[in-house]
Amino acid sequence: MLGGAATHFALAASFFADVRAVGPVGDDFTDADIAILQTRGTSTDDVERVAGGETFFWSGEYGWDLNSRETLDTQLGVFESFEPKLSEASRDADTVFLANIQPDIQRQVREQCAGARFVAMDSMDLWINIARESLQQVISSVDCVILNDAELRQLTRKPNLVAAAREVLSWGPKAVVGKQGEYGAALFTKDGFFSLPAYPLEDVIDPTGAGDTFAGGLVGYVAAHPDQVVDHDLLVRAMAYGTALASFNVEEFGTERVTRLNPRELLVRVAELERITRFTDVPVELRG
Amino acid sequence: MLGGAATHFALAASFFADVRAVGPVGDDFTDADIAILQTRGTSTDDVERVAGGETFFWSGEYGWDLNSRETLDTQLGVFESFEPKLSEASRDADTVFLANIQPDIQRQVREQCAGARFVAMDSMDLWINIARESLQQVISSVDCVILNDAELRQLTRKPNLVAAAREVLSWGPKAVVGKQGEYGAALFTKDGFFSLPAYPLEDVIDPTGAGDTFAGGLVGYVAAHPDQVVDHDLLVRAMAYGTALASFNVEEFGTERVTRLNPRELLVRVAELERITRFTDVPVELRG
Repeated sequence: MLGGAATHFALAASFFADVRAVGPVGDDFTDADIAILQTRGTSTDDVERVAGGETFFWSGEYGWDLNSRETLDTQLGVFESFEPKLSEASRDADTVFLANIQPDIQRQVREQCAGARFVAMDSMDLWINIARESLQQVISSVDCVILNDAELRQLTRKPNLVAAAREVLSWGPKAVVGKQGEYGAALFTKDGFFSLPAYPLEDVIDPTGAGDTFAGGLVGYVAAHPDQVVDHDLLVRAMAYGTALASFNVEEFGTERVTRLNPRELLVRVAELERITRFTDVPVELRG
Repeated sequence: MLGGAATHFALAASFFADVRAVGPVGDDFTDADIAILQTRGTSTDDVERVAGGETFFWSGEYGWDLNSRETLDTQLGVFESFEPKLSEASRDADTVFLANIQPDIQRQVREQCAGARFVAMDSMDLWINIARESLQQVISSVDCVILNDAELRQLTRKPNLVAAAREVLSWGPKAVVGKQGEYGAALFTKDGFFSLPAYPLEDVIDPTGAGDTFAGGLVGYVAAHPDQVVDHDLLVRAMAYGTALASFNVEEFGTERVTRLNPRELLVRVAELERITRFTDVPVELRG
Protein backbone atom coordinates (compact mmCIF):
# COMPACT_ATOMS: atom_id res chain seq x y z
CA MET A 1 0.00 0.00 0.00
CA LEU A 2 0.99 3.64 -0.28
CA GLY A 3 3.56 4.53 2.33
CA GLY A 4 6.87 6.22 2.10
CA ALA A 5 8.60 8.78 4.20
CA ALA A 6 7.52 11.68 1.99
CA THR A 7 3.85 10.75 2.18
CA HIS A 8 3.75 10.23 5.94
CA PHE A 9 5.95 13.21 6.69
CA ALA A 10 4.04 15.58 4.40
CA LEU A 11 0.66 14.55 5.78
CA ALA A 12 1.84 15.41 9.29
CA ALA A 13 3.83 18.53 8.48
CA SER A 14 1.07 20.04 6.37
CA PHE A 15 -0.93 20.73 9.55
CA PHE A 16 1.66 23.40 10.36
CA ALA A 17 3.14 24.87 7.19
CA ASP A 18 3.49 24.70 3.41
CA VAL A 19 5.21 21.48 2.46
CA ARG A 20 7.13 20.78 -0.71
CA ALA A 21 7.97 17.15 -1.42
CA VAL A 22 11.18 16.38 -3.29
CA GLY A 23 11.96 13.00 -4.84
CA PRO A 24 11.37 10.61 -7.69
CA VAL A 25 8.45 8.24 -8.24
CA GLY A 26 7.88 5.64 -10.92
CA ASP A 27 5.06 4.95 -13.35
CA ASP A 28 3.41 2.89 -10.63
CA PHE A 29 2.73 5.98 -8.48
CA THR A 30 -0.94 6.67 -9.21
CA ASP A 31 -2.84 9.93 -9.41
CA ALA A 32 -4.59 8.86 -6.21
CA ASP A 33 -1.18 8.55 -4.54
CA ILE A 34 -0.27 12.04 -5.72
CA ALA A 35 -3.59 13.32 -4.39
CA ILE A 36 -2.81 11.97 -0.91
CA LEU A 37 0.60 13.59 -1.04
CA GLN A 38 -1.15 16.86 -1.92
CA THR A 39 -3.44 16.80 1.14
CA ARG A 40 -3.60 20.22 2.81
CA GLY A 41 -1.75 21.81 -0.09
CA THR A 42 1.57 19.94 -0.18
CA SER A 43 3.33 20.88 -3.39
CA THR A 44 4.49 18.04 -5.62
CA ASP A 45 6.24 20.34 -8.12
CA ASP A 46 9.55 18.75 -7.16
CA VAL A 47 8.26 15.21 -7.36
CA GLU A 48 9.85 13.80 -10.47
CA ARG A 49 8.04 11.05 -12.34
CA VAL A 50 10.59 8.76 -13.96
CA ALA A 51 9.20 7.07 -17.07
CA GLY A 52 9.70 3.33 -16.94
CA GLY A 53 10.89 3.58 -13.34
CA GLU A 54 9.58 1.93 -10.20
CA THR A 55 8.78 3.76 -6.97
CA PHE A 56 10.83 2.99 -3.86
CA PHE A 57 9.43 -0.14 -2.22
CA TRP A 58 9.75 -1.52 1.29
CA SER A 59 8.19 -4.51 2.97
CA GLY A 60 8.77 -5.87 6.43
CA GLU A 61 7.42 -8.06 9.15
CA TYR A 62 6.62 -6.91 12.69
CA GLY A 63 7.16 -9.06 15.77
CA TRP A 64 4.30 -10.21 17.99
CA ASP A 65 4.34 -7.12 20.21
CA LEU A 66 5.22 -4.76 17.31
CA ASN A 67 8.42 -3.74 19.11
CA SER A 68 10.69 -5.29 16.53
CA ARG A 69 10.53 -5.37 12.78
CA GLU A 70 12.50 -7.11 10.12
CA THR A 71 12.95 -5.69 6.65
CA LEU A 72 11.94 -8.29 4.08
CA ASP A 73 12.59 -6.25 0.97
CA THR A 74 13.91 -2.80 0.09
CA GLN A 75 13.95 -1.72 -3.54
CA LEU A 76 15.41 1.72 -4.16
CA GLY A 77 13.85 1.78 -7.63
CA VAL A 78 13.98 5.30 -9.05
CA PHE A 79 16.16 6.43 -6.12
CA GLU A 80 18.95 4.26 -7.58
CA SER A 81 19.97 7.00 -9.98
CA PHE A 82 18.23 10.05 -8.53
CA GLU A 83 20.09 13.35 -8.63
CA PRO A 84 18.09 16.00 -6.83
CA LYS A 85 17.73 19.33 -8.57
CA LEU A 86 15.51 21.45 -6.41
CA SER A 87 13.29 24.23 -7.68
CA GLU A 88 14.01 27.69 -6.41
CA ALA A 89 11.02 27.49 -4.09
CA SER A 90 12.38 24.34 -2.48
CA ARG A 91 15.90 25.71 -2.24
CA ASP A 92 14.49 28.64 -0.26
CA ALA A 93 12.96 26.36 2.38
CA ASP A 94 13.16 27.66 5.92
CA THR A 95 12.88 24.15 7.31
CA VAL A 96 14.06 20.91 5.72
CA PHE A 97 13.64 17.23 6.49
CA LEU A 98 15.99 14.77 4.85
CA ALA A 99 14.03 11.54 4.97
CA ASN A 100 15.77 8.19 5.07
CA ILE A 101 17.58 7.50 1.77
CA GLN A 102 21.17 7.19 0.53
CA PRO A 103 23.26 9.71 2.52
CA ASP A 104 24.75 11.11 -0.68
CA ILE A 105 21.30 12.14 -1.88
CA GLN A 106 20.59 13.68 1.51
CA ARG A 107 23.85 15.61 1.26
CA GLN A 108 22.98 17.00 -2.17
CA VAL A 109 19.58 18.22 -0.95
CA ARG A 110 21.15 19.67 2.15
CA GLU A 111 23.69 21.61 0.06
CA GLN A 112 20.95 23.00 -2.17
CA CYS A 113 19.08 24.30 0.87
CA ALA A 114 22.08 26.11 2.27
CA GLY A 115 20.04 28.91 3.85
CA ALA A 116 17.62 26.77 5.84
CA ARG A 117 17.08 27.77 9.46
CA PHE A 118 16.51 24.16 10.58
CA VAL A 119 17.49 20.92 8.88
CA ALA A 120 16.54 17.56 10.38
CA MET A 121 17.31 14.09 9.06
CA ASP A 122 16.51 10.41 9.43
CA SER A 123 18.46 7.36 8.32
CA MET A 124 18.48 3.61 8.87
CA ASP A 125 20.68 0.63 9.74
CA LEU A 126 21.36 -0.12 6.06
CA TRP A 127 23.27 3.15 5.56
CA ILE A 128 25.09 2.78 8.88
CA ASN A 129 26.30 -0.57 7.56
CA ILE A 130 27.23 0.33 4.00
CA ALA A 131 27.72 4.12 3.93
CA ARG A 132 28.84 5.11 7.40
CA GLU A 133 31.26 7.83 6.29
CA SER A 134 28.78 9.57 3.98
CA LEU A 135 26.20 9.33 6.70
CA GLN A 136 28.46 10.93 9.31
CA GLN A 137 29.19 13.71 6.82
CA VAL A 138 25.48 14.49 6.40
CA ILE A 139 24.92 14.27 10.14
CA SER A 140 27.61 16.86 10.75
CA SER A 141 25.78 19.25 8.40
CA VAL A 142 22.31 19.17 9.97
CA ASP A 143 20.69 20.68 13.05
CA CYS A 144 18.75 17.66 14.26
CA VAL A 145 19.18 13.91 13.89
CA ILE A 146 16.04 11.79 14.35
CA LEU A 147 16.90 8.09 14.57
CA ASN A 148 15.62 4.96 16.24
CA ASP A 149 17.45 4.50 19.51
CA ALA A 150 18.89 1.16 18.37
CA GLU A 151 20.31 2.94 15.32
CA LEU A 152 21.90 5.62 17.50
CA ARG A 153 23.63 2.86 19.46
CA GLN A 154 24.68 1.10 16.26
CA LEU A 155 25.92 4.31 14.64
CA THR A 156 28.13 5.24 17.59
CA ARG A 157 28.89 1.69 18.74
CA LYS A 158 27.82 2.79 22.20
CA PRO A 159 25.35 0.56 24.04
CA ASN A 160 24.10 3.41 26.23
CA LEU A 161 21.60 5.77 24.58
CA VAL A 162 22.69 8.85 26.53
CA ALA A 163 26.32 8.25 25.60
CA ALA A 164 25.34 7.55 21.98
CA ALA A 165 23.32 10.74 21.72
CA ARG A 166 26.13 12.82 23.24
CA GLU A 167 28.54 11.34 20.73
CA VAL A 168 26.28 12.36 17.83
CA LEU A 169 25.88 15.85 19.32
CA SER A 170 29.68 16.13 19.31
CA TRP A 171 29.66 15.66 15.52
CA GLY A 172 27.75 18.91 15.03
CA PRO A 173 23.95 18.68 15.33
CA LYS A 174 22.29 20.80 17.99
CA ALA A 175 19.70 18.13 18.74
CA VAL A 176 19.40 14.37 18.67
CA VAL A 177 16.06 12.60 18.96
CA GLY A 178 16.00 8.90 19.76
CA LYS A 179 12.77 7.27 18.59
CA GLN A 180 11.76 4.43 20.88
CA GLY A 181 8.64 3.02 19.24
CA GLU A 182 5.88 2.35 21.75
CA TYR A 183 8.09 3.81 24.50
CA GLY A 184 8.09 7.23 22.90
CA ALA A 185 11.07 9.41 22.15
CA ALA A 186 13.95 11.13 23.90
CA LEU A 187 15.46 14.50 23.04
CA PHE A 188 19.09 15.40 23.70
CA THR A 189 20.47 18.91 23.26
CA LYS A 190 23.34 20.78 24.85
CA ASP A 191 20.74 22.24 27.20
CA GLY A 192 19.40 18.99 28.45
CA PHE A 193 17.19 16.01 28.10
CA PHE A 194 13.49 15.47 27.55
CA SER A 195 11.55 12.27 27.27
CA LEU A 196 8.00 11.69 26.14
CA PRO A 197 6.17 8.35 26.02
CA ALA A 198 4.08 7.33 23.08
CA TYR A 199 0.37 8.03 23.46
CA PRO A 200 -1.11 4.84 24.95
CA LEU A 201 -3.30 2.97 22.47
CA GLU A 202 -5.12 -0.30 23.01
CA ASP A 203 -5.21 -1.07 19.30
CA VAL A 204 -2.10 -0.44 17.27
CA ILE A 205 -2.89 -1.51 13.74
CA ASP A 206 0.16 -0.55 11.69
CA PRO A 207 3.33 1.11 13.03
CA THR A 208 4.65 1.71 9.50
CA GLY A 209 5.28 5.38 8.93
CA ALA A 210 5.05 6.31 12.60
CA GLY A 211 8.62 7.60 12.59
CA ASP A 212 8.08 9.80 9.56
CA THR A 213 4.76 11.05 10.90
CA PHE A 214 6.52 11.90 14.17
CA ALA A 215 9.22 13.74 12.24
CA GLY A 216 6.54 15.55 10.23
CA GLY A 217 4.90 16.82 13.39
CA LEU A 218 8.19 17.79 14.97
CA VAL A 219 9.65 19.59 11.96
CA GLY A 220 6.24 21.04 11.05
CA TYR A 221 5.95 22.58 14.51
CA VAL A 222 9.37 24.18 14.07
CA ALA A 223 8.31 25.47 10.64
CA ALA A 224 5.22 27.01 12.21
CA HIS A 225 7.50 29.18 14.38
CA PRO A 226 9.70 30.88 11.77
CA ASP A 227 10.69 33.74 14.05
CA GLN A 228 11.79 31.63 16.99
CA VAL A 229 15.20 30.27 17.78
CA VAL A 230 15.05 26.49 17.60
CA ASP A 231 16.06 25.80 21.16
CA HIS A 232 15.46 22.98 23.62
CA ASP A 233 12.05 24.28 24.71
CA LEU A 234 10.72 24.65 21.18
CA LEU A 235 11.86 21.12 20.33
CA VAL A 236 10.22 19.77 23.48
CA ARG A 237 6.85 21.11 22.34
CA ALA A 238 7.55 20.01 18.78
CA MET A 239 8.07 16.47 20.05
CA ALA A 240 4.64 16.50 21.63
CA TYR A 241 3.03 17.30 18.28
CA GLY A 242 5.11 14.66 16.56
CA THR A 243 4.15 12.10 19.19
CA ALA A 244 0.45 12.94 18.96
CA LEU A 245 0.48 12.71 15.17
CA ALA A 246 2.35 9.40 15.21
CA SER A 247 -0.27 7.95 17.53
CA PHE A 248 -2.98 8.66 14.98
CA ASN A 249 -0.87 7.18 12.20
CA VAL A 250 -0.65 3.76 13.88
CA GLU A 251 -4.39 3.55 14.56
CA GLU A 252 -5.10 2.44 10.99
CA PHE A 253 -3.22 1.09 8.00
CA GLY A 254 -1.02 3.32 5.90
CA THR A 255 -2.14 6.92 5.65
CA GLU A 256 -5.83 6.27 6.33
CA ARG A 257 -6.16 7.87 9.74
CA VAL A 258 -4.01 10.96 9.28
CA THR A 259 -5.69 11.89 6.00
CA ARG A 260 -8.98 12.04 7.96
CA LEU A 261 -7.50 13.79 11.02
CA ASN A 262 -8.69 17.24 11.96
CA PRO A 263 -6.75 19.85 13.93
CA ARG A 264 -9.07 19.70 16.92
CA GLU A 265 -8.36 15.98 17.43
CA LEU A 266 -4.66 16.70 17.30
CA LEU A 267 -4.85 19.47 19.90
CA VAL A 268 -6.91 17.26 22.21
CA ARG A 269 -4.29 14.53 22.04
CA VAL A 270 -1.43 16.92 22.73
CA ALA A 271 -3.30 18.11 25.80
CA GLU A 272 -3.81 14.48 26.85
CA LEU A 273 -0.09 13.83 26.48
CA GLU A 274 0.61 16.81 28.68
CA ARG A 275 -1.71 15.43 31.35
CA ILE A 276 -0.53 11.81 31.36
CA THR A 277 3.14 12.66 31.65
CA ARG A 278 2.93 15.38 34.28
CA PHE A 279 3.55 14.87 37.95
CA THR A 280 4.06 17.33 40.73
CA ASP A 281 6.22 16.23 43.59
CA VAL A 282 4.76 16.52 47.07
CA PRO A 283 7.77 16.50 49.35
CA VAL A 284 7.85 13.68 51.85
CA GLU A 285 9.91 13.31 54.98
CA LEU A 286 12.76 10.93 54.26
CA ARG A 287 15.03 9.02 56.60
CA GLY A 288 18.74 9.60 56.43
CA MET B 1 27.21 -10.74 45.22
CA LEU B 2 24.46 -9.82 47.63
CA GLY B 3 21.28 -9.06 45.78
CA GLY B 4 17.79 -10.31 46.21
CA ALA B 5 14.44 -8.63 46.07
CA ALA B 6 14.24 -8.20 49.86
CA THR B 7 17.59 -6.43 50.06
CA HIS B 8 16.97 -4.04 47.17
CA PHE B 9 13.37 -3.39 48.13
CA ALA B 10 14.13 -2.79 51.82
CA LEU B 11 17.01 -0.42 51.06
CA ALA B 12 14.69 1.71 48.96
CA ALA B 13 11.57 1.49 51.11
CA SER B 14 13.44 2.28 54.32
CA PHE B 15 13.79 5.90 53.18
CA PHE B 16 10.06 6.24 53.76
CA ALA B 17 8.89 3.92 56.53
CA ASP B 18 9.70 1.05 58.88
CA VAL B 19 10.41 -2.04 56.86
CA ARG B 20 10.12 -5.63 58.03
CA ALA B 21 11.70 -8.26 55.79
CA VAL B 22 10.09 -11.72 55.67
CA GLY B 23 11.79 -14.76 54.21
CA PRO B 24 14.35 -17.52 54.66
CA VAL B 25 18.11 -17.36 54.18
CA GLY B 26 20.73 -20.07 54.35
CA ASP B 27 23.97 -20.48 56.27
CA ASP B 28 25.70 -18.63 53.45
CA PHE B 29 23.93 -15.36 54.31
CA THR B 30 26.61 -13.47 56.24
CA ASP B 31 26.33 -11.03 59.12
CA ALA B 32 27.46 -8.34 56.68
CA ASP B 33 24.53 -9.25 54.44
CA ILE B 34 22.18 -8.97 57.39
CA ALA B 35 23.71 -5.60 58.25
CA ILE B 36 22.95 -4.28 54.77
CA LEU B 37 19.38 -5.52 55.04
CA GLN B 38 19.15 -3.63 58.35
CA THR B 39 20.16 -0.27 56.83
CA ARG B 40 17.93 2.55 58.08
CA GLY B 41 16.36 0.24 60.65
CA THR B 42 14.84 -2.54 58.56
CA SER B 43 13.76 -5.30 60.92
CA THR B 44 15.04 -8.80 60.19
CA ASP B 45 13.03 -10.41 62.99
CA ASP B 46 11.06 -12.35 60.37
CA VAL B 47 14.12 -13.42 58.41
CA GLU B 48 14.47 -17.09 59.12
CA ARG B 49 17.92 -18.62 58.98
CA VAL B 50 17.66 -22.25 57.85
CA ALA B 51 20.51 -24.38 59.17
CA GLY B 52 22.17 -26.31 56.37
CA GLY B 53 20.17 -24.36 53.78
CA GLU B 54 21.29 -22.23 50.87
CA THR B 55 20.04 -18.73 50.17
CA PHE B 56 18.04 -18.10 46.97
CA PHE B 57 20.48 -17.62 44.10
CA TRP B 58 20.09 -16.02 40.69
CA SER B 59 22.56 -15.36 37.93
CA GLY B 60 21.98 -13.97 34.49
CA GLU B 61 23.55 -12.33 31.50
CA TYR B 62 22.61 -8.93 30.10
CA GLY B 63 22.59 -8.13 26.39
CA TRP B 64 24.89 -5.52 24.84
CA ASP B 65 22.54 -2.59 25.44
CA LEU B 66 21.29 -4.00 28.81
CA ASN B 67 17.73 -4.09 27.44
CA SER B 68 17.50 -7.85 27.52
CA ARG B 69 18.65 -10.35 30.05
CA GLU B 70 18.80 -14.10 30.14
CA THR B 71 18.54 -16.05 33.35
CA LEU B 72 21.46 -18.47 33.58
CA ASP B 73 20.63 -20.01 36.93
CA THR B 74 17.87 -19.78 39.52
CA GLN B 75 18.18 -21.79 42.73
CA LEU B 76 15.25 -21.46 45.11
CA GLY B 77 17.35 -22.92 47.91
CA VAL B 78 15.64 -22.36 51.25
CA PHE B 79 12.52 -21.05 49.45
CA GLU B 80 11.94 -24.61 48.21
CA SER B 81 10.24 -25.58 51.46
CA PHE B 82 9.50 -22.19 53.03
CA GLU B 83 6.22 -21.76 54.87
CA PRO B 84 5.83 -18.19 55.98
CA LYS B 85 4.70 -17.64 59.56
CA LEU B 86 4.67 -13.93 60.11
CA SER B 87 5.21 -12.24 63.46
CA GLU B 88 2.35 -10.18 64.80
CA ALA B 89 4.20 -7.01 63.88
CA SER B 90 4.48 -8.14 60.28
CA ARG B 91 0.88 -9.30 60.14
CA ASP B 92 -0.17 -5.81 61.16
CA ALA B 93 1.60 -4.19 58.23
CA ASP B 94 -0.20 -1.26 56.64
CA THR B 95 1.62 -1.78 53.36
CA VAL B 96 2.93 -5.04 51.92
CA PHE B 97 5.13 -5.96 48.99
CA LEU B 98 5.10 -9.56 47.79
CA ALA B 99 8.43 -9.86 46.01
CA ASN B 100 8.91 -12.33 43.18
CA ILE B 101 8.73 -15.93 44.46
CA GLN B 102 6.42 -18.94 44.13
CA PRO B 103 2.85 -17.56 43.96
CA ASP B 104 1.74 -19.97 46.70
CA ILE B 105 4.18 -18.37 49.14
CA GLN B 106 2.98 -14.93 48.08
CA ARG B 107 -0.60 -16.03 48.71
CA GLN B 108 0.21 -17.26 52.21
CA VAL B 109 1.86 -13.96 53.14
CA ARG B 110 -1.00 -12.02 51.60
CA GLU B 111 -3.52 -14.00 53.69
CA GLN B 112 -1.58 -13.36 56.89
CA CYS B 113 -1.64 -9.61 56.19
CA ALA B 114 -5.38 -9.48 55.71
CA GLY B 115 -5.76 -5.97 57.09
CA ALA B 116 -3.19 -4.23 54.93
CA ARG B 117 -4.27 -0.96 53.29
CA PHE B 118 -2.09 -1.56 50.21
CA VAL B 119 -0.58 -4.77 48.86
CA ALA B 120 1.67 -4.79 45.81
CA MET B 121 3.34 -7.72 44.12
CA ASP B 122 5.94 -8.71 41.55
CA SER B 123 6.41 -11.99 39.70
CA MET B 124 8.38 -13.36 36.75
CA ASP B 125 8.09 -15.38 33.54
CA LEU B 126 8.95 -18.63 35.34
CA TRP B 127 5.73 -18.51 37.40
CA ILE B 128 3.66 -17.45 34.41
CA ASN B 129 4.93 -20.57 32.69
CA ILE B 130 4.62 -23.13 35.48
CA ALA B 131 2.14 -21.69 37.99
CA ARG B 132 -0.22 -19.47 36.03
CA GLU B 133 -3.34 -20.34 38.01
CA SER B 134 -1.78 -19.74 41.42
CA LEU B 135 -0.33 -16.53 40.09
CA GLN B 136 -3.69 -15.27 38.83
CA GLN B 137 -5.16 -16.10 42.22
CA VAL B 138 -2.59 -13.94 44.02
CA ILE B 139 -3.01 -11.16 41.50
CA SER B 140 -6.73 -11.05 42.14
CA SER B 141 -6.02 -10.54 45.86
CA VAL B 142 -3.68 -7.54 45.66
CA ASP B 143 -4.05 -3.81 45.04
CA CYS B 144 -1.16 -3.31 42.66
CA VAL B 145 0.72 -5.54 40.23
CA ILE B 146 4.24 -4.44 39.29
CA LEU B 147 5.59 -6.48 36.37
CA ASN B 148 7.93 -6.06 33.43
CA ASP B 149 5.91 -5.06 30.42
CA ALA B 150 6.94 -8.20 28.53
CA GLU B 151 5.64 -10.26 31.44
CA LEU B 152 2.31 -8.42 31.38
CA ARG B 153 1.98 -9.33 27.69
CA GLN B 154 3.00 -12.93 28.39
CA LEU B 155 0.64 -13.24 31.35
CA THR B 156 -2.39 -12.02 29.41
CA ARG B 157 -1.29 -13.31 25.99
CA LYS B 158 -1.99 -9.83 24.69
CA PRO B 159 0.72 -8.22 22.57
CA ASN B 160 -0.48 -4.69 23.38
CA LEU B 161 0.59 -3.33 26.77
CA VAL B 162 -2.50 -1.17 27.27
CA ALA B 163 -4.77 -4.13 26.53
CA ALA B 164 -2.67 -6.39 28.76
CA ALA B 165 -2.80 -3.96 31.67
CA ARG B 166 -6.59 -3.52 31.31
CA GLU B 167 -6.98 -7.29 31.36
CA VAL B 168 -5.01 -7.53 34.63
CA LEU B 169 -7.05 -4.67 36.10
CA SER B 170 -10.18 -6.68 35.30
CA TRP B 171 -8.89 -9.48 37.56
CA GLY B 172 -9.11 -7.25 40.62
CA PRO B 173 -6.09 -5.01 41.25
CA LYS B 174 -6.66 -1.27 41.35
CA ALA B 175 -3.33 -0.54 39.70
CA VAL B 176 -0.96 -2.17 37.25
CA VAL B 177 2.57 -0.91 36.72
CA GLY B 178 4.50 -2.04 33.66
CA LYS B 179 8.24 -1.79 34.19
CA GLN B 180 10.04 -0.96 30.96
CA GLY B 181 13.70 -0.96 31.94
CA GLU B 182 15.59 1.98 30.49
CA TYR B 183 12.32 3.29 29.03
CA GLY B 184 10.80 3.79 32.46
CA ALA B 185 7.45 2.59 33.69
CA ALA B 186 3.76 2.98 32.92
CA LEU B 187 0.90 3.11 35.42
CA PHE B 188 -2.62 1.94 34.63
CA THR B 189 -5.58 2.50 36.98
CA LYS B 190 -9.29 2.85 36.41
CA ASP B 191 -8.68 6.60 36.52
CA GLY B 192 -6.13 6.69 33.80
CA PHE B 193 -2.63 6.30 32.57
CA PHE B 194 0.73 7.75 33.56
CA SER B 195 4.12 7.16 32.05
CA LEU B 196 7.53 8.12 33.37
CA PRO B 197 10.86 7.53 31.63
CA ALA B 198 13.86 6.21 33.49
CA TYR B 199 16.26 8.88 34.69
CA PRO B 200 18.82 9.24 31.88
CA LEU B 201 22.25 7.92 32.85
CA GLU B 202 25.38 7.80 30.74
CA ASP B 203 26.85 4.94 32.74
CA VAL B 204 24.60 2.09 33.73
CA ILE B 205 26.76 -0.38 35.61
CA ASP B 206 24.35 -3.05 36.86
CA PRO B 207 20.59 -3.15 36.24
CA THR B 208 20.14 -6.04 38.69
CA GLY B 209 17.73 -5.09 41.43
CA ALA B 210 16.43 -2.01 39.63
CA GLY B 211 12.90 -3.43 39.56
CA ASP B 212 12.87 -4.19 43.29
CA THR B 213 14.42 -0.82 44.11
CA PHE B 214 11.71 0.82 42.00
CA ALA B 215 9.06 -1.17 43.87
CA GLY B 216 10.67 -0.20 47.18
CA GLY B 217 10.42 3.47 46.35
CA LEU B 218 6.88 3.16 45.06
CA VAL B 219 5.51 1.10 47.94
CA GLY B 220 7.60 3.06 50.46
CA TYR B 221 6.06 6.32 49.25
CA VAL B 222 2.59 4.84 49.74
CA ALA B 223 3.60 3.67 53.23
CA ALA B 224 4.74 7.19 54.05
CA HIS B 225 1.17 8.41 53.47
CA PRO B 226 -0.84 6.18 55.82
CA ASP B 227 -3.80 8.52 55.98
CA GLN B 228 -4.27 8.95 52.26
CA VAL B 229 -6.38 6.96 49.88
CA VAL B 230 -4.09 5.17 47.44
CA ASP B 231 -5.44 6.71 44.26
CA HIS B 232 -4.03 7.43 40.84
CA ASP B 233 -2.36 10.69 41.87
CA LEU B 234 -0.60 9.19 44.89
CA LEU B 235 0.72 6.34 42.75
CA VAL B 236 1.94 8.79 40.11
CA ARG B 237 4.13 10.51 42.70
CA ALA B 238 5.13 7.16 44.18
CA MET B 239 6.38 6.11 40.74
CA ALA B 240 8.64 9.14 40.61
CA TYR B 241 10.32 8.11 43.85
CA GLY B 242 10.64 4.52 42.66
CA THR B 243 12.14 5.70 39.38
CA ALA B 244 14.63 8.00 41.08
CA LEU B 245 15.73 5.27 43.49
CA ALA B 246 16.11 2.72 40.70
CA SER B 247 18.37 5.12 38.83
CA PHE B 248 20.77 5.21 41.77
CA ASN B 249 20.68 1.44 42.07
CA VAL B 250 21.99 0.89 38.54
CA GLU B 251 24.87 3.34 38.92
CA GLU B 252 26.98 0.79 40.77
CA PHE B 253 27.05 -2.95 41.38
CA GLY B 254 24.61 -4.60 43.75
CA THR B 255 23.54 -2.47 46.69
CA GLU B 256 26.62 -0.24 46.75
CA ARG B 257 25.08 3.03 45.60
CA VAL B 258 21.78 2.93 47.47
CA THR B 259 23.42 2.05 50.80
CA ARG B 260 25.40 5.32 50.44
CA LEU B 261 22.47 7.39 49.16
CA ASN B 262 21.22 10.31 51.21
CA PRO B 263 17.71 11.78 51.14
CA ARG B 264 18.84 15.07 49.63
CA GLU B 265 20.24 13.30 46.56
CA LEU B 266 16.96 11.46 46.15
CA LEU B 267 14.87 14.65 46.33
CA VAL B 268 17.13 16.38 43.80
CA ARG B 269 16.64 13.52 41.35
CA VAL B 270 12.87 13.49 41.77
CA ALA B 271 12.88 17.21 40.99
CA GLU B 272 15.04 16.54 37.93
CA LEU B 273 12.58 13.89 36.75
CA GLU B 274 9.78 16.39 37.11
CA ARG B 275 11.69 18.88 34.98
CA ILE B 276 12.79 16.57 32.16
CA THR B 277 9.35 15.08 31.59
CA ARG B 278 7.29 18.27 31.72
CA PHE B 279 6.13 20.19 28.71
CA THR B 280 3.62 22.95 28.38
CA ASP B 281 1.77 23.19 25.12
CA VAL B 282 1.84 26.54 23.35
CA PRO B 283 -1.13 26.40 20.99
CA VAL B 284 -0.26 26.77 17.35
CA GLU B 285 -2.50 27.58 14.42
CA LEU B 286 -3.22 24.38 12.54
CA ARG B 287 -4.54 23.82 9.03
CA GLY B 288 -7.75 21.87 8.57
